[in-house]
Order: sequence, then C-alpha cells, then structure tokens
Amino acid sequence: MEETKLKELLDSLSWPEKIGQLVQLSGDFFHADQLAVGPQKKLGIDQKIVDQVGSVLNVTGAEKTREIQDRYLKKSRHKIPLLFMADIIYGYRTIFPIPLGLGATWNPALIEEAYEQTAEESKAAGAHVTFAPMVDLVRDARWGRSLESTGEDPVLNSAFAKAMVTGLQKDLLNGGGIASCVKHFAAYGAAEGGREYNTVDMSERRLRQDYLPSYKAAVDAGCQLVMTSFNTYDGMPVTGSKFLLEDILRKEWGFDGVIISDYAAIQELIAHGVATDDREATKLAIEATTDIDMKTPCYAKELEPLIEDGEISTELVDRSVYRVLKLKNDLGLFEDPYRGASQEQEECVFLTEEKRHLAKKVSSESVVLLQNKRDVLPLTPNQEKVLLVGPYGDNQELIGLWAVHGKREDVVTIKKGFEHYLDSEHLLYTQGCDMLEDYTFLGEFGATKDQIEQLGLTDAMKEQELSQALTLAKQADTVVLALGEHTMQSGEAGSRTDITLPKIQQDFLQKIAELNKKTVLIVISGRPLVLTKEVELVDGIVQAWFPGTEGGNALADIIFGQTNPTGRLSMSFPYSVGQLPMYYSEFKTGRPLTSPTHKGRFVSKYLDSQNDPLFSFGYGLSYSKVMYTDLTLSSEQMHETLKVSVKVKNISKRTTTETVQLYVQDVTGSVVRPVKELKAFQKVALDADEEKTVYFDLTKEELKFYTKNMTFDAEPGAFIVFVGPNVKDTQEKSFTLL
Amino acid sequence: MEETKLKELLDSLSWPEKIGQLVQLSGDFFHADQLAVGPQKKLGIDQKIVDQVGSVLNVTGAEKTREIQDRYLKKSRHKIPLLFMADIIYGYRTIFPIPLGLGATWNPALIEEAYEQTAEESKAAGAHVTFAPMVDLVRDARWGRSLESTGEDPVLNSAFAKAMVTGLQKDLLNGGGIASCVKHFAAYGAAEGGREYNTVDMSERRLRQDYLPSYKAAVDAGCQLVMTSFNTYDGMPVTGSKFLLEDILRKEWGFDGVIISDYAAIQELIAHGVATDDREATKLAIEATTDIDMKTPCYAKELEPLIEDGEISTELVDRSVYRVLKLKNDLGLFEDPYRGASQEQEECVFLTEEKRHLAKKVSSESVVLLQNKRDVLPLTPNQEKVLLVGPYGDNQELIGLWAVHGKREDVVTIKKGFEHYLDSEHLLYTQGCDMLEDYTFLGEFGATKDQIEQLGLTDAMKEQELSQALTLAKQADTVVLALGEHTMQSGEAGSRTDITLPKIQQDFLQKIAELNKKTVLIVISGRPLVLTKEVELVDGIVQAWFPGTEGGNALADIIFGQTNPTGRLSMSFPYSVGQLPMYYSEFKTGRPLTSPTHKGRFVSKYLDSQNDPLFSFGYGLSYSKVMYTDLTLSSEQMHETLKVSVKVKNISKRTTTETVQLYVQDVTGSVVRPVKELKAFQKVALDADEEKTVYFDLTKEELKFYTKNMTFDAEPGAFIVFVGPNVKDTQEKSFTLL
Repeated sequence: MEETKLKELLDSLSWPEKIGQLVQLSGDFFHADQLAVGPQKKLGIDQKIVDQVGSVLNVTGAEKTREIQDRYLKKSRHKIPLLFMADIIYGYRTIFPIPLGLGATWNPALIEEAYEQTAEESKAAGAHVTFAPMVDLVRDARWGRSLESTGEDPVLNSAFAKAMVTGLQKDLLNGGGIASCVKHFAAYGAAEGGREYNTVDMSERRLRQDYLPSYKAAVDAGCQLVMTSFNTYDGMPVTGSKFLLEDILRKEWGFDGVIISDYAAIQELIAHGVATDDREATKLAIEATTDIDMKTPCYAKELEPLIEDGEISTELVDRSVYRVLKLKNDLGLFEDPYRGASQEQEECVFLTEEKRHLAKKVSSESVVLLQNKRDVLPLTPNQEKVLLVGPYGDNQELIGLWAVHGKREDVVTIKKGFEHYLDSEHLLYTQGCDMLEDYTFLGEFGATKDQIEQLGLTDAMKEQELSQALTLAKQADTVVLALGEHTMQSGEAGSRTDITLPKIQQDFLQKIAELNKKTVLIVISGRPLVLTKEVELVDGIVQAWFPGTEGGNALADIIFGQTNPTGRLSMSFPYSVGQLPMYYSEFKTGRPLTSPTHKGRFVSKYLDSQNDPLFSFGYGLSYSKVMYTDLTLSSEQMHETLKVSVKVKNISKRTTTETVQLYVQDVTGSVVRPVKELKAFQKVALDADEEKTVYFDLTKEELKFYTKNMTFDAEPGAFIVFVGPNVKDTQEKSFTLL
Repeated sequence: MEETKLKELLDSLSWPEKIGQLVQLSGDFFHADQLAVGPQKKLGIDQKIVDQVGSVLNVTGAEKTREIQDRYLKKSRHKIPLLFMADIIYGYRTIFPIPLGLGATWNPALIEEAYEQTAEESKAAGAHVTFAPMVDLVRDARWGRSLESTGEDPVLNSAFAKAMVTGLQKDLLNGGGIASCVKHFAAYGAAEGGREYNTVDMSERRLRQDYLPSYKAAVDAGCQLVMTSFNTYDGMPVTGSKFLLEDILRKEWGFDGVIISDYAAIQELIAHGVATDDREATKLAIEATTDIDMKTPCYAKELEPLIEDGEISTELVDRSVYRVLKLKNDLGLFEDPYRGASQEQEECVFLTEEKRHLAKKVSSESVVLLQNKRDVLPLTPNQEKVLLVGPYGDNQELIGLWAVHGKREDVVTIKKGFEHYLDSEHLLYTQGCDMLEDYTFLGEFGATKDQIEQLGLTDAMKEQELSQALTLAKQADTVVLALGEHTMQSGEAGSRTDITLPKIQQDFLQKIAELNKKTVLIVISGRPLVLTKEVELVDGIVQAWFPGTEGGNALADIIFGQTNPTGRLSMSFPYSVGQLPMYYSEFKTGRPLTSPTHKGRFVSKYLDSQNDPLFSFGYGLSYSKVMYTDLTLSSEQMHETLKVSVKVKNISKRTTTETVQLYVQDVTGSVVRPVKELKAFQKVALDADEEKTVYFDLTKEELKFYTKNMTFDAEPGAFIVFVGPNVKDTQEKSFTLL
C-alpha cells in the first residue's frame, strides 16, 4: 500500500479502531471459536475492544494463526490484519544454543545464518514479529536472563545484535524473514544484586558507554520494533521514560518504528509508584512514545478518555497508530495477511537436515573447553571404557527455558551423541544422581504439591543410582559427568544468590572424583556458574550452556575429537558469588594491584579472593595450541587509522580456528578509562603447523568514548594495544594518538 | 589574629612558603633531631620544602608534638605554626565501639558526648584536627570500612554526623575541642562489589538523595575540613572533581573550610588515568579546590611551576593558602601553637573513670541482641556453670583496626567482665579454638613468614584446646562462645568476598552445638556477618562489634542482665553474600513480592533466597517486650506538618529504652520512591509496665526528595506512615499531602 493510502486508512478509523491497533493481547483471547470471556473479564475490557485489537502475543503455528486471522478479518470493517508476535529467542523449532552460548562462538556471521533459518521456520508458522534479539549487557551472573544475553561486552554484543537483526529480517520488505523487536531497552541487565526486575541505577556515562551500544547496533541494523524494559533508569521505569524512548531512541537515533511495552509493563507503572492508576500509567507511556500496550487494559480503556479530556494530543496517538499500520504495510500484510504461514511450508522448512546441520555447527562453536588437565580430552572412540553419568547424560532438556516452540523430543541427548563413537561395550551409562535435591520452587509454575513430590528420583532410586554409578565408574577408564542447572534455574525470573551446581550434584561429583579416574565434566547451564571446587576435582571441563536440539551430537564430536573446540567466553566466570558484579573492562583505580607506590594491603582487592575471575572473558582452550608473535603497529603514531598485525601459528597437528582478540587501553583520559576494552576480533582458520599474519585496522572512531563533557570523541595521547587469545594472555604495544 | 592581619601575613609569604601550607607530610619527616632524609628522598622533595610544610599527619602525644612544633617554629621566618592532624576515629586513648556499633545505639546525643570526650583526650595529646567523622553510607557488607560507618541510612547517618562534629568541635573557636575533618567526600561507601578503592558509579539522583546528606549534615554542623575520597564519581576521581568539590561542596553548600586529599590521592590521579604526571595531577586537584596535598610531592613540586607558567591562577592558590591560615588562626595556634598539648593534661584526661564509664555506657547501647531462643539470656550470676570459650573470650583485641592511639592493655576482656558475675567455681574458660585457620594475609602488613608461622596456636595446642573445650562444655550448663573476625579482616582494605565467621571458628561452633547445651554466641566483627548457619546452631546471639576499651564490662552486664540490651541495627545483616548490595530502603519495582497481578515466579526475587535480610535494619531484641498500639495521625490530610503518635507499653517487669522508629512511603512520585524511608526516631525510657505516648512532628520538609526534574520538593499525594520497633514490624496509617 502506498503511504498516502495508508494515511487515508488512518484517517478513516474511529478512535476505538485506532486505539485497537495499540493494544496487544495474548492468544487466549483469540483461541476459541467464541472469543474467550475469562481473560477479558480479568483484564476488564469488553468484546468491542478485543475485536479491534491490533496484535497478538505468542500464538504461532500456521493453522492457528491463519484461523485467527481469518476470523478476525471477517469482523473487521477496514480489513486491517492482525500482527502475530512471539517469543522466538534462539530458534523456532530448530533450537540453537542459548544466546550466552551464541556469544561464545564469537562468530556473528554464523549467528546471522542461524537467525535467518529461525526466521524461515517462524514465518512458515505464521509469526510476523519476534521479540528478539535480546541484547542486554550483563555483568552479574546471578541474573537468570544472562541466558538470553550474548554477554558482558558492548562491542561483542553489538556485533551479535546486528547479526541477529540482519538474519531475522533478511529481505523483510520483499516478504522475507520476520520483523525483529530488539529488547529490552534499556539496561535491564544491570538489575541490582542480579535480582530480576530490580532497580537499575547508573550514571548516564555508563549507560551510554556500555549499555546502549548493542541496542543502537540493532536499531542501525534496521530492527522494526523495540521493546521497553521492566527496570527503572534514573528513577523512571523505561516504559514511561521520555528521556530514553523519545529523546534517545527516537530523536537521537532516529528510530521511527514501533515501541512495544514488555509484558504488562504499562500497568506496572502503578506498582513502580510513578502512576496512581491506569489512566496515569497510560498517559506516561504514550507520552514517552510507547506505541503498543502488551497485555494490560490501560491503552484500551484509558486512551480515549484522555484524548476526549484533551490531556493528550490526538497527533501523539495518531503517530503511534500510524507506526503500527506502517509496520503491517511494510510486512505486506494488507496484500497477504497470512504472509507465508502454511502447514505445507512448515513441513518443508521445520528442522530440515540442513537446519540440524547448522544447529550442530553453532552448538559446536559455542562449547567452551575450560580445562583439559593431563590432556584428558579428546577421548578416542572405542578404545577405552567411558562412563557417562549425571542428570544431563541422557536428557532432552538441552534447549533451555526460553525455547518456547522447541520440542524436547527433537533433541539429541548426549548419550545419543556418544553412541556414534562408542559401542555398547565401551559406553557405560547411568543417571547417577538426581537433578535437584529439592523441586519445591517449581510450584511457582503452578505445579501442585503432589506433582512436585513425583519429580526427581525416589530415595530408593537415588541410592541405587549412586551405587550403580560408583560400580560402573570403577570399571571405566574415564568418567564423563553431565551436570548442570535445572532448566527452571535460569531464564526470566531465574535469579540465584548461589550460582554453584546443585548441591546434590556437587556431592555426587565429589564421590566420583574420589575414585581417581580420568574425569570430564560437561556443564549445562544458563549462566556462568561458580566452578571453583570443580576445577580441583576433575580433569576436563566442557562448558556446554543449553546447547539446543543438536547439543548431544555437537558435544560428542568435541569429546571424541571430531571437532576441535573453539568457543571463547563472552562473560567472565567468577571465582565466587562474592566477586559480583564482574567484568573485564573495569575502570582503573588509584590503587591497582600493580601500583608502584602502594603495596601489600592497601590496593584495590579482597583479602580472601583474587580480583580476577576463575575464567576470563575471551578464554577457551582448543586441542591445538596457537602461538602469538610479532605484534606490530604500522606506526607508533596514529592519525586516523593504525594497522595492527600479529603472527599466529598453529603449533599442533590439528586444524583449528583461532579467535584473535584486540583490546585497547586509553592510558590517560579526561575521565577514568577501562583497563582494557575489546575493539576487534577475527576468527582465523589455521591448518596444522600453519602460520598466518592477522591484520586489524584500528580506527580513530574505535577510540572514541564519552569524554568529560559527554561529547563522543577520541582524545590524543598514549594508548596500549593488546592482542591475544583472551583478555588476560595478551602481548602489548604502545602508540600515541595525535 | 584579625582577618586583615591574616591577609597581610598571606601577602608577606613567598610562593614556596605559601605552597608549604598546602602540603602535609607524615611524622617520619619530623621525628628526628635531624629531619629524616629517607622519606624525603622517596618522595623526591627537598629540605626547603619540608621546612615549610604546613601540617603533619598522625603524630600525636603532647611531648612529641610540642617538640616538633618548637623545632619547626625556630626555623620559621613567619612563625606560622604546624597543624597536627591525626586519625582519631572512635576514641583517642579511651576507645569507644567502632562507628558501626555507634550507629546501633541510635543515640546521637550520647555519641556527641563520646566525641567531646575524645576531643578532650586528643587535644591534650596535641592533635588539632581529626580525620573524623567518617560518614560514608554503606550498603555492601563486603566493604571493610563498613566498620567506620554508622550504616546504611541517610537520616540516621546524618544525625550521627552532626553529633560527632558537634562533639569534637565543642567550643572550638574558644580553644575547646579539636577541628573535625569529615570524610570521605563523596560516596566512597559505594565501591563496586564492596571491593576497596573500586569504581563508584551511580546516578546524580542517588548521589544526592542517599549519599550526600550525611556529608552535608557534617558541613552544616560546622566541620572545619573535608577529606576527598579515593573513588571516582562520574568518571572523575573525587580529588580532581570540580563538580563535587567546587560546584556542590563549595558553591551549593557554601563550604569555605579546608579540603584535604586522602592519603596520596592527588598523585593517584595518575594511576586512575586522568593525569599523565604529577603536574597534571596537581592542576586537576587545585582547580577542583583541593587545598592540601596529603603525602605526595605533587603540590610541593608542581604548584610553583604551574603558577610561573600561568597555567593556574595565583588567586586560586592564595585562596587555598588563606583557608589553611584561617584554620590555624581559628584554632588559636598563632596565640598558642601547642593549643593545650601537655603531658600533665594527658595524665588528667586520659582514660579517666568518667571516660571509662562513658565508654561502657556507649558499648552497652551499641550491643544488639539478635536472638534469644528459649530465653537463654540473661544468665543468672553464680547460679549455673558457664563456659566462656573462643578466641575473643579473653582477648584485648576488642578495639578494632582503626583505634590507632588506643592501647590493648587498657582493654577489659570479656573474661574479666564475666568475673564480676561468676566466681571461679561457676566460670570455666578456655580459648577452645584459634582465631584463624590461616594467618598468611597478615604478611601484607610486613609480617615475615617466620612471624606469621608463630601466630595462632600450634597443631598440638589446637587439639588440646578443642578437647579441653569439649570437656568443659560437658560440665557447663551454658556455653558462651566469643567468636568473630580477626582485627585485620575489616577496616580499610579489609574487603572480603566471604563474610562468614572464619572457617575454623564455624567448625568449632558446630562441635560445641552438637553437645546440646544452652549456647550463646557473642559476635565480634567490623561488619554485618552472614550468620545464617549460626542462627540454627545457637540459642542466643549477641552482636558486639568491636566494643572498645570497656567492651568486656559492657558485655558482661548484658549477658548477666545488669543492662537490658537496647541496640538496634543500623545496617542490614544479609542472609548470604549473594544478596549484596542490600538496604531496606530499596525502590519499588513493577513486580513486588506482593504484586496483585504477578504471582509465583515472575516477581522480583531470587529463586533460592528470600529478599529480606536475615536481620533487618532497626532490629534488635531486649529482655523486655514493648507493645505498640494506637498509631494515630492528627489528620488524614497534611499541609505543613502532621502529628503522629503511638502508644508504647513495656509489658515486662524490666526497665527498658525503646527506639521508636518512624518510616514513610511516598506512594506515588514523579520518580520511583523507596518502599520505606526512615524519617524520625525517638529513644523512650519505659519502666516496668509503663505506657507512654510518643509524638512525632512529621514535616513537609521531611517528605522532600529529588523529583523528576531534580528539584528538591515534596509532591502532593498519598503517603503511608509506618511506626514500629524496626523496619519490618510496623503498623501503618495513610495520609494525603495536600
């Protein structure tokens, strides 16, 4: 539809029809033949509103979405199609690793491909918009939604943000892909104490320097929508923040797409205590330019009276309605309200061999080998007896909490993967121990007491499993323990104060370790866990995140050396929860550990802990070994650019891909600067014994930051370039920016 | 000296003489007959500068200070006396409890008296200025300097700030008291992760609302000096921050006293990375109006060249010099450069019976009874056998880390205190267990490896002590365990990631607990410890902080019921380190635990922990019980003031003093507001069975906060008043501000 026609359409709508476009309800309002009355009553909105609602939350599947669209359009005076939006975070049917694992690939190009495939599946299933990517920077592993983030670094997160949006929206205006809604704008990941939904407080300097870049990257990549976050910033919940939404997002960044509130966030302005009722909440949100109200009656009930009373301008509302209509038009929904949703297409594109292959590749690249004492890994197929134990040994829960549309039955378990390498004589398996010592917290999802009591193993089974595991372990040469967090222990509202392995699994690991076998620990988790004890107890540690549909195959390939692990951490693994928050790019202090003038006690540290994490940002082992030499700068003085080169040599007989990381320190600034900041990285394929020279073009643009007076600029003076395989093990050279 | 004369004096000084006034060196520069050359060389400053230095750090004692002053004045062309400044934090010779204990008294009037007594001792010892009070707000118990703070609340901290300054400076301009230097301006207590000297980042809103009020209260109370803090704020170390020092402290607050850097903080601007060398550091600091450079060569070497090169104005430096001269003049030093320093006076005022009595009273009021299961306390004198055990049972280390001038030999141990109540037949004692399992960290203070190895008990002694303790415990009716942190585990640079009792003491406690005796735990600590396990293992818990010189007597009086404990926490005690940072006045979230719309998982909480602390702000038990009834407001509508009254009745047979606490919630604001904020408190004496009505006048002024546009104002609307014995157990009434 042409723009003029779209404007005519807007003008032809009544206020209730306009406002309907700004309301999103969930599927339960639309499922039944008769529109459900229960949810309506609960929200206190009437049938007239439901009939005119402009978008639907979390209904997918070609059959369902087509049926709802059909029924809706029949009733619709103007035939404006419904928008179907859904949580499709790291895969629709083919589930990739959780985003924290995607971050560990350091491979945005690959992730772009994964999200393109995800869009293909989602589109077939009738989704028009996905609430992805989630690009919140996170530096506190207590936060459950660490799972959904690519990590702690603004540059790396921005690269992934761009890749994900680009992948999802490929060819969007020509009917391809699905629209991307970046979330959660802004700084949601900085919840105090890592406690979900908690207050966020930081300086505008930190906000702009660290937290905003990834959202900006998504906007620059053309994401069609932005979701507001639950948290406050500077005392104002973002959903009502003119500063963040209007001043920064719309005016500074030029975003004129749709802003949607997170689930119920407009009405939550009341609980936050910045609005006394629905009417005030509505006014705050619409004036901040929040276009769509997700799942509350605020806009539906209060916008019209506010307009009538002259408390908000009609232009303000019209602009929001127009944004929604424009999105529908850009997606081609006026021409084809189903937009490719089809059951035949679903069958064609869901979980194809090609997609499984890609999922395995992504999983493989996401896995991080954290430890490999005595070169315990890789194992040789069918040469020794391997005991696979632990609650994740033969478990299809490898897709994590936020894979809403994934199916557990599609998942290749670790045991299944191992069976490709070990025959029944060499593969021993038993569960060995329960997932949790206590399942009570699952009651939060409505599980009854009876149901909870039936979860996990009975005491008798526990005893039997343990004794069986110990018996088998004695027969085995190597024990592989597949342990980790329960699915429900991470993800939204999955904040934890203790981020070690569940106690029951720790105890089990201890017992196995006492047998002095070669041991490998596979860790399934939605966050960096504290693995300080485990480092001492086992030989190998493989961080596998929730690895997705093909997780078992990817892990088996790594364990048995078919794949050389190349994943690198995108989030620091703390030594203890008492170190949090933690991030490598901390600011210089006046009394660093290396202070020449202060020694002993009076430097910035803890008495009882190192400052460093257990495993650093950028860290990860491979079965090969790469040597870095000859770090060279094109000049000691930089005007606009500087060429940085380094030689990397694979000093092993195994092909690998090395993630070469470049960090910079701005030695003196008009404000305090981080000790190191990631500026660039390259994945370099290296054959056995191969040496390559890697070149980086460092630009003045990359040296810019928010200076004392908040201009974004690079300041002349001394800099240090660091290059290496992770943030800690680097070589360095100095230069001067003129 | 008259002001005009002082200005003439200023004009008569050469630049080196002027600059000397802005330099502070430590005592080692002045001790010897010949000025020491070692320290000079290290700092790289010459004799000429040392001869003209204007103030001395941490030399005290009448004899020494008089001698140094004498020698100095002989060489001085203008006879400008030296200023003697010292760390006198919670007592000079008579040591009171650490400030975190003072906070627990909720009795600013008493603390004013304590600081007045401290000033008397200090003045006799030749100190002119004390680096106190420390009024940093602290909400993270990992920070070692929690010890020096009165706690987490701005209103309570402000009340103590005022009391301490007033006490120290009583009659200052007429020769009384000593000058107070409030510290550490500003927000030092918010170091990230509770790690000493670490970055501070927060919004200006939070800074002004929570962190600045206590410094402001000290300035308003007339403190003569302000010390800058080590941390950054908004990217700038405070010592170089024009925003904090010039804009807020000098211009907004009208402070024209002396600003002194913390120890070496000017030169640390280089390590912070905001200055490349001493010269730039000097320029930043003087331009921010930092008057005195403590312990670095920056001002001494760089001010004059900067003036000569026209890079800083002569007026700027003259103004700083004048402030120092004025301080000396206000203290009467030109008339009497010794200002009452005298050995006779020392003998008269040090540790008098009156002072010991006051110290005991303060200690008594600082002790917080955290738990009293089965009414285990108080014990009856000479009626049952009591075993006193633990490394603090008969230990004079009760004065904590920052009692620089206190003497351990003056300290009354807990055992000594107990001996007033128990004869040798009823009092059993043995140390029972070592203080620490590992003393290695003491090497930080220069202890050699050999010395460290001689610390603590030998293995044989450990075994013997344990067996002795268990034997005696079996004979005893009640076991009192005196456990806690080693002195060096808190205070400056005493940050810890694990804030439980030392492991060796936990194990010991466990073994004692297994005997199923009545057990009382006395906790000696410089911070809120995590006592979650201990709560289960013992009957009574007495939080004693580092209770000072008279600690043993105060504790014995409480344990045996001579004193009714009335202390109330001024800082929350966390359930685990994973909850930190923690404070009762947290902001409302959109999804509170009590949300009517969100249930189960999706509220702001942890999966594995309560949100609440183990022991709340304001909490503490007494041997009596007080009932609160009839909370009454003078009106449901407030114009300028509101009278709040509540009846408190002592429903026991024991006299007590109840700390009645009044909190407010501003239900809806233009920005998010805390769930509760302390506004007022009263200590009310209640005889057995006595009932009193307590009145509060709540004013509109007290309802002011930084509104959305950063004006400090009260906003009309709904409020809730809460009154109770602590922040959690309150009654409430609503009112409307018109």
